[in-house]
Amino acid sequence: MKELIVLGFILYALCFILTKMKLSQSLSQTSKTVAHDADSTNAKLLTQAGFVKKEAAGIYSYLPFGRKVLAKIEAIIREEMNAIGGQEVLLPALTPLENWKKTGRDKVDIAFRPTEKTVLGWSHEEIITPLAKQRIKSYRDLPFAAYQIQTKFRNEPRAKSGLLRGREFLMKDLYSFHTNKEDFEEYYEKAKKAYFKVFERCGLKSFLIAAGGGEFTENVSHEFQVLTEAGEDRVLVCEKCELGWNAELETTKCEKCGEKLEEKKGSEVGNIFDLGTKYSDAFDLNFVNTEDKQQKVLMGCYGIGVSRLVATIAEVWSDEKGLIWPKSVAPFQIHLMSLGKNEEAAKEAVKIYEMLSKETEVLFDDRSCGAGEKFADADLIGIPLRMVVSEKTLEAGGVEIKKRNEEKTEIVKTSELLKKDFEKII
Amino acid sequence: MKELIVLGFILYALCFILTKMKLSQSLSQTSKTVAHDADSTNAKLLTQAGFVKKEAAGIYSYLPFGRKVLAKIEAIIREEMNAIGGQEVLLPALTPLENWKKTGRDKVDIAFRPTEKTVLGWSHEEIITPLAKQRIKSYRDLPFAAYQIQTKFRNEPRAKSGLLRGREFLMKDLYSFHTNKEDFEEYYEKAKKAYFKVFERCGLKSFLIAAGGGEFTENVSHEFQVLTEAGEDRVLVCEKCELGWNAELETTKCEKCGEKLEEKKGSEVGNIFDLGTKYSDAFDLNFVNTEDKQQKVLMGCYGIGVSRLVATIAEVWSDEKGLIWPKSVAPFQIHLMSLGKNEEAAKEAVKIYEMLSKETEVLFDDRSCGAGEKFADADLIGIPLRMVVSEKTLEAGGVEIKKRNEEKTEIVKTSELLKKDFEKII
Repeated sequence: MKELIVLGFILYALCFILTKMKLSQSLSQTSKTVAHDADSTNAKLLTQAGFVKKEAAGIYSYLPFGRKVLAKIEAIIREEMNAIGGQEVLLPALTPLENWKKTGRDKVDIAFRPTEKTVLGWSHEEIITPLAKQRIKSYRDLPFAAYQIQTKFRNEPRAKSGLLRGREFLMKDLYSFHTNKEDFEEYYEKAKKAYFKVFERCGLKSFLIAAGGGEFTENVSHEFQVLTEAGEDRVLVCEKCELGWNAELETTKCEKCGEKLEEKKGSEVGNIFDLGTKYSDAFDLNFVNTEDKQQKVLMGCYGIGVSRLVATIAEVWSDEKGLIWPKSVAPFQIHLMSLGKNEEAAKEAVKIYEMLSKETEVLFDDRSCGAGEKFADADLIGIPLRMVVSEKTLEAGGVEIKKRNEEKTEIVKTSELLKKDFEKII
Repeated sequence: MKELIVLGFILYALCFILTKMKLSQSLSQTSKTVAHDADSTNAKLLTQAGFVKKEAAGIYSYLPFGRKVLAKIEAIIREEMNAIGGQEVLLPALTPLENWKKTGRDKVDIAFRPTEKTVLGWSHEEIITPLAKQRIKSYRDLPFAAYQIQTKFRNEPRAKSGLLRGREFLMKDLYSFHTNKEDFEEYYEKAKKAYFKVFERCGLKSFLIAAGGGEFTENVSHEFQVLTEAGEDRVLVCEKCELGWNAELETTKCEKCGEKLEEKKGSEVGNIFDLGTKYSDAFDLNFVNTEDKQQKVLMGCYGIGVSRLVATIAEVWSDEKGLIWPKSVAPFQIHLMSLGKNEEAAKEAVKIYEMLSKETEVLFDDRSCGAGEKFADADLIGIPLRMVVSEKTLEAGGVEIKKRNEEKTEIVKTSELLKKDFEKII
């Protein structure tokens, strides 16, 4: 069963996300010029490499390359949320104002108000709690957890840093419901582990940081921070122990090893909250306990910024030449190109394209431009493995392969290409 | 390659959409009472069977069963759109008002306006056209097609008929770009065929009907109508020739066979438009032709109401007892239940549940309620194959199987269950 799920996900990633594309025909195109208003590395590179297009402050379109990265991250998140028992739902973006009045969050500045009686969802406690109320009668109906991957809207006065802080963004939000504190805490720990897994699978090292609850709760909450200069938060970390503290807490030494903490900038890619009974109180969400008495349900909520993850990966995995996608989230696994005007080489490249795209995801730079431009674009787009076919490589015995994150090149015989263990090459 | 895609999709459907669920633990629950404001069969049944929850007029949450159906329909649509060269993108819902001013559609009544300068996208010509402008320089860059599956918002004054006419709904919109009329028409025919395939794969017979372009274009357009009493449109159809005409056109006889047309009610599940140069004019979308002259790009647009499809399927595939999902879009393939208090039967049911869910998607009614309630709920939820395990069925030699759309029951030995060709049973 588990193997079937994993296999399905791999094939799903290979298929739904489309396995092949000719760069000459792609709607995603590179650009030589940097957008004048690109205020961060992720905005600059993702725009220039054809992953996104900025439509307005904090609002982006995802072009085919970007859509593929999103889909891969979504698949990783779904797998990990299903693994901790999350049931997938889809809640509306357009939500009734009356629900927000019950929690007092109707006056929050960041909320868009399309009509007098509606609010564009910037979080969904106000929708999931009444939904859970319809489901929960007794202790037998608990615990459960539901999640969605959905577009959120926040009227950020300072939308900036590319996809890091948007006014419209993709988010995964999971909500859990429990009879008692122990049960909640057990699930909270499970969610923590699932979160570390998600970020690790996306190629990111994350630090767990205790924080305040903000608009969400008065109880404990934790942030998952990824260290990057583009981050908006200041965090104190012990790299050795992989622990971190909010810089506002004035801790100076690691609580585990005692060494001096380093102050770094971080990007908050996820957060988890102990909601206590805040929303259960507001919506009168009760259950009948084993002693036949009404009791308040305990809730937790767990968010991951899906589009912010794209931006954070771009910040962490890039150099002066462009993006360097971890293979788990790369839009393609191989960036194939033919160079020069040799007809035999051009034909061989097409043959290799057709052959490889049966096995993995291939982007084929079939454009007529020069070698310099093709190499520069390959570095900019950042596909894990580059493969060059030219008169020269054929004379040397085959195709030249090079990893995006290494300088070393290697010639591989065309006939040997398919025999190679792709997992190892890439 | 094609086989790999198909295999991937099947496994994807089996996995991502989750293969097993115990009804006792599901957030989707049946209800004995009909919602007082359910104004249509789909609203009534989808709500009662735990697929959706109404949040406000024309606004619904999708519970796990409903989310699964959506995901299956989305996968079918993606496959068919990719097959006609569609490149998947994701455009924002929050769009700049200035774009809508250029086409004169800024004053359209159905548009939500969250701020003075923004419009919630109710269609996306105003976003995709400037995006295409960035991509298209010469005739060499054409044709291409891009699509998205995304939430649309329309402030319908008469949101009604459940998911048939919502204020927030899921839509697939594809846009195509061409150098000349012939190329456009060739693609338009391709899209027509893909649309028939999508609806057929969703278990629906659709009629192609010539219609006006409404807010979209002055040129030709076609609707895909599915006949149902819940539909809002009146259409004249020739069932023999599978052709239809808009009732406002006053045609009385089939243009093909000459027989008298029947007036029916229809639900518009898709539409395709020849946009001509309407949007290319507004955004000055040109290409350099083979004679090195600037020429306007021709556009087409192609919509499918994804959430409306859920509702239409529910209208067409239901009876007085409940829903009858076509297996291609059913949330599960098997509805397994254990009846009675016999411990051996209960254990056998769990064994069968674990065994079958390795092969296909199983919903297991493990609740402690009576046989009558379990049978009624199975009919209400509408999974294609019902499987009963009880003392009686075990005495008779195994489990009782029955298709949702047939009265006939059959006893199958437990040991034979896995040997059966599931495709044939279901």
